[in-house]
Amino acid sequence: MCSLIDFCDIFTHMVNPFKIIRKDKNSGARIGKLVTSHGEVRTPIFMPVGTQATVKTLSPEELINIGAEIILCNAYHLTLRPGTKIIKEAGGLHEFMHWDAPILTDSGGYQIFSLSDLRKITDEGAEFQSHIDGKRIFLTPEESIRIQNDLGADIIMNLDECIQYPCEHDYAEIAMQRTCRWAERCKSAHANRRQLLFPVIQGGMHKDLRERCANELVKEGFPGYAIGGLSVGEERSLMYEIAQHTLRFIPECRVRYLMGVGDPRDLLECIGLGIDMFDCVMPTRNARNGTVFTRRGKLIVKNAKHIRNYGPIEAECGCYACRNYSLAYIRHLFNTREILGLRLTSIHNLYFLTELIKDARKAISENRFLDFKKAFLEQYVWKLVL
Amino acid sequence: MCSLIDFCDIFTHMVNPFKIIRKDKNSGARIGKLVTSHGEVRTPIFMPVGTQATVKTLSPEELINIGAEIILCNAYHLTLRPGTKIIKEAGGLHEFMHWDAPILTDSGGYQIFSLSDLRKITDEGAEFQSHIDGKRIFLTPEESIRIQNDLGADIIMNLDECIQYPCEHDYAEIAMQRTCRWAERCKSAHANRRQLLFPVIQGGMHKDLRERCANELVKEGFPGYAIGGLSVGEERSLMYEIAQHTLRFIPECRVRYLMGVGDPRDLLECIGLGIDMFDCVMPTRNARNGTVFTRRGKLIVKNAKHIRNYGPIEAECGCYACRNYSLAYIRHLFNTREILGLRLTSIHNLYFLTELIKDARKAISENRFLDFKKAFLEQYVWKLVL
Repeated sequence: MCSLIDFCDIFTHMVNPFKIIRKDKNSGARIGKLVTSHGEVRTPIFMPVGTQATVKTLSPEELINIGAEIILCNAYHLTLRPGTKIIKEAGGLHEFMHWDAPILTDSGGYQIFSLSDLRKITDEGAEFQSHIDGKRIFLTPEESIRIQNDLGADIIMNLDECIQYPCEHDYAEIAMQRTCRWAERCKSAHANRRQLLFPVIQGGMHKDLRERCANELVKEGFPGYAIGGLSVGEERSLMYEIAQHTLRFIPECRVRYLMGVGDPRDLLECIGLGIDMFDCVMPTRNARNGTVFTRRGKLIVKNAKHIRNYGPIEAECGCYACRNYSLAYIRHLFNTREILGLRLTSIHNLYFLTELIKDARKAISENRFLDFKKAFLEQYVWKLVL
Repeated sequence: MCSLIDFCDIFTHMVNPFKIIRKDKNSGARIGKLVTSHGEVRTPIFMPVGTQATVKTLSPEELINIGAEIILCNAYHLTLRPGTKIIKEAGGLHEFMHWDAPILTDSGGYQIFSLSDLRKITDEGAEFQSHIDGKRIFLTPEESIRIQNDLGADIIMNLDECIQYPCEHDYAEIAMQRTCRWAERCKSAHANRRQLLFPVIQGGMHKDLRERCANELVKEGFPGYAIGGLSVGEERSLMYEIAQHTLRFIPECRVRYLMGVGDPRDLLECIGLGIDMFDCVMPTRNARNGTVFTRRGKLIVKNAKHIRNYGPIEAECGCYACRNYSLAYIRHLFNTREILGLRLTSIHNLYFLTELIKDARKAISENRFLDFKKAFLEQYVWKLVL
């Protein structure tokens, strides 16, 4: 293990904040730790999403109790509201939102493409309209880094060009090349050495582009690498294939982050490929819609059959919601549109993923990750609705 | 003190669950304790309202941390959703909602008159349409008690006839007399000796009717008495006058509950008259609208002037919100419609009232309640908007 890490450090001329602690003998899975300015993060890790400087419905203390070690906030949203100036004056994002553990900020690349109308993209940067008030904004790679420097997250992301799915090779190549050129500019602009800067590998579903993008970015040298542009509507088998292919071109010693993935099955499959970090709004969004994870599959809280279910969502679960409340009560809270219901399902879903990943880490450390994954996937029936 | 209590017990032939601990020498204010099946409640006390078996946005643990000792739930709402059968099967309201401290349930009298259309009231009971689905429901005093027996709160309320404000003497008299007849039926129907049953004194703004109603109900004999039909739009001076007048006819040794009052000024004025218990949705409802209490008056969270206020809502406040979050952040949460904002303001407002009443208790025990009240009211400027 050490030799790999040493090689990696020599290769990129930088201290590697990531240490692999154990590798599974039968898969690409590994456990590690990532050192940040606000403490260590154990990997693999799932990052709850706190788009607007709050993980929806939850307090920081609740997140800590769930076992969350790092959260993701969104530079795009925070730039629009309340504005980076406010957050900087408040003492930075951690102080502003009362979260003293690591934070990763997404650059806003994905949001520019998914939320705003009338975007216009050139090599200089991206011009788009705010999804809040229609105001025109021009965002360059340098400005994106300056914003993220001001926010003060522990890990910040390069501005990248996200493409739609499906996307033909020609445009995917143009966007990939721009993402690489922007990566260089982001790296040059990055001025806060307490923050780790990760680039995003793009290239759509085209393997040659993924390879070229990864190689280019690795040559540039970063403390960690994200894989973007997956989980955008493609078949999951294709997602796994592209993720696996892309991973080949990222040094094994570097931390690898698969963006926007949070389905339990995807987490296990991708941990098996060697992914270390994940984020996704789905677990908390589904929770607010009343859909919760169980080991057997998803459960719809409002289903009439739960009206007299006086047991918890899941008997084996140790989360605050399952320890203290019945499904009948949570169903009542959803029926009456009471906010405590949203809180309880959000806690449950995040706890479910956090525990799943904890169990995965344990399995990796005992070289039984594949058995663990198989057992979970056999029990977890996606189409079953409880 | 003891002699009063003894007299009271002899008078009504029942054990008095309320003990006066200290009386203020210069006003009607007193501190006491009320013994219930789920523990003692110190009085004066403000009861947060958890209409639908949840104090909106908050968890039971948060309420305990705020200092809440008893909450109010609403039998009318719980009958409609999820239905008393569900709550009874779940083990009662405490178990259902994960709240192990005292609960008071309101009968639903007020809601029948404020929420439902097409109500028809006869001596037999009240016929009304559900505000949820329009279903016709016929509620008798006996049924109201049976429902509340099933819910299992520590204190339950007689079904009463609430009148509109203003209301002429003639109809106010009819409604008051019906309330008295219903009180007798409620008392006869009451079958759970672990629950304290309180009647509601009605009579509108008519002093003679208040006197007759109070005398009638006191003759019937109950462990505590509520004053209803105030804080319904009348001038606050008239409210104080009617409350003070009504109190004359309630034995001093009995616990006295003024329904629907929660404004800080009203709390202090009415504590000074000798009221022991209060409830009101206003503190939590205002919180969700972004209006919070401070010692100087109310503060509107979304006001533009708070955009760069990096201090707490109130520097002297020890609540979770004020200890950990800036007004700028809470404002951001309101602007982005984030639920944590509603939680923080709800915590603040309930903590504010709880602390105010704690301070009032201390002042009473030191015979300086009037000075305390004066100092608070001088500083608290209602029309000032911070």
